[in-house]
Amino acid sequence: MKIYDREGGPHPTRVRIVLAEKKLEDQIEFVSVDLIGAQQKQSSFLAMNPIGKVPVLVLNDGTIISESTAITEYFDNLDGNPTLTGKTPREKGLIHMMQRRAEMMLIDAVDDYFHYGTPGLGAALRPWRMPDWSGAKEWGQRRGAYAVQNMAYFNNILEKQPFLAIDAFSMPDITLFAGLLFAQLAGLPIDPKLTALAAWRSRVSEIPCVKNRSGQAPLPEDIARMSA
Amino acid sequence: MKIYDREGGPHPTRVRIVLAEKKLEDQIEFVSVDLIGAQQKQSSFLAMNPIGKVPVLVLNDGTIISESTAITEYFDNLDGNPTLTGKTPREKGLIHMMQRRAEMMLIDAVDDYFHYGTPGLGAALRPWRMPDWSGAKEWGQRRGAYAVQNMAYFNNILEKQPFLAIDAFSMPDITLFAGLLFAQLAGLPIDPKLTALAAWRSRVSEIPCVKNRSGQAPLPEDIARMSA
Repeated sequence: MKIYDREGGPHPTRVRIVLAEKKLEDQIEFVSVDLIGAQQKQSSFLAMNPIGKVPVLVLNDGTIISESTAITEYFDNLDGNPTLTGKTPREKGLIHMMQRRAEMMLIDAVDDYFHYGTPGLGAALRPWRMPDWSGAKEWGQRRGAYAVQNMAYFNNILEKQPFLAIDAFSMPDITLFAGLLFAQLAGLPIDPKLTALAAWRSRVSEIPCVKNRSGQAPLPEDIARMSA
Repeated sequence: MKIYDREGGPHPTRVRIVLAEKKLEDQIEFVSVDLIGAQQKQSSFLAMNPIGKVPVLVLNDGTIISESTAITEYFDNLDGNPTLTGKTPREKGLIHMMQRRAEMMLIDAVDDYFHYGTPGLGAALRPWRMPDWSGAKEWGQRRGAYAVQNMAYFNNILEKQPFLAIDAFSMPDITLFAGLLFAQLAGLPIDPKLTALAAWRSRVSEIPCVKNRSGQAPLPEDIARMSA
């Protein structure tokens, strides 16, 4: 199997954690996508994923699966023992709900902030392939504020329970962890007052599949651009 | 079990189709949410779903599950025979991928168009609870154009295969069907040139769970506002 991604990117990190959890990394050939060179916006990549984002999984029979959640569903169910996407109907419901909340309320908002509220990777690499519009920067900044405000929501949940959806580490914890990495990279760190969230992040970063995931390098170009 | 929703709303329609497919409607007590009166933005509702959207499922033990996809996961797996969310890892991967594409490339973009690019339900009911910003209307209109452009993408897929993800009707077909209903309500009908998409919609509208779903009434207030 092949995965088109980029080491250290927030969404690739989600899938790398899944691969480590399911002990599948040695079955994957990673193909590095030149995000700065806009390879993910070129027609050959868009034919695989019209959203123009990494990661993309290509199975040995040529089947293409994009979206971190969809790739997670595939890998987590391969061995008939899903540990990240839920075993019972109730677990599946709670996991998918909190996963979407971690996307909508955090990682997606951070993504918008990074690409519109900051210089990001430049206008040509914006995810929706939309040219600038008059309120783009203000909108991006509001999206960043929305992400920051929502960190308190997740903190409140984690004051009451050890993980986001069920009693064990699962897909939404991966999404939130990657979202907070992305937020930090984009200049939106966790407020020190959110002690439950920070403690959860410390615990999660020590879970073997998180700690031992491959591809932990940050994107040096991104950091250079953001500090420029 | 209780479902808080509103008859005829695009996301409630997704779950009503699932209930009809799984023959679970008679186990549900529907609680109508006053969308026009902003009940879904009030604190009692936000405590159930911080996103402030319907539908929300409440199980008999008090467990709350929001998000149409999460509710679908719950109901589809209750009988141990998932027909909408995939049986094999490959099916699960393809279904979740296409489901997200149908959300990101259509129903979410239509939602943004409706609430920002048109008068929608008014500023107070906008989904992100953001006050106006200078480029809001232009942004909403671009989101509508993005939705319309993506109808061609789905048409291309449906020229080659009978349903969006696998050989049978599944969750992404429900999302696309509801997205096109919402688009039509918002004034973005299918271009007659997209014959495969239109033919697919005709076929889907005759599938028993789609045809016989409950709560088909449109929101008369919405239509009145939009034609005002």
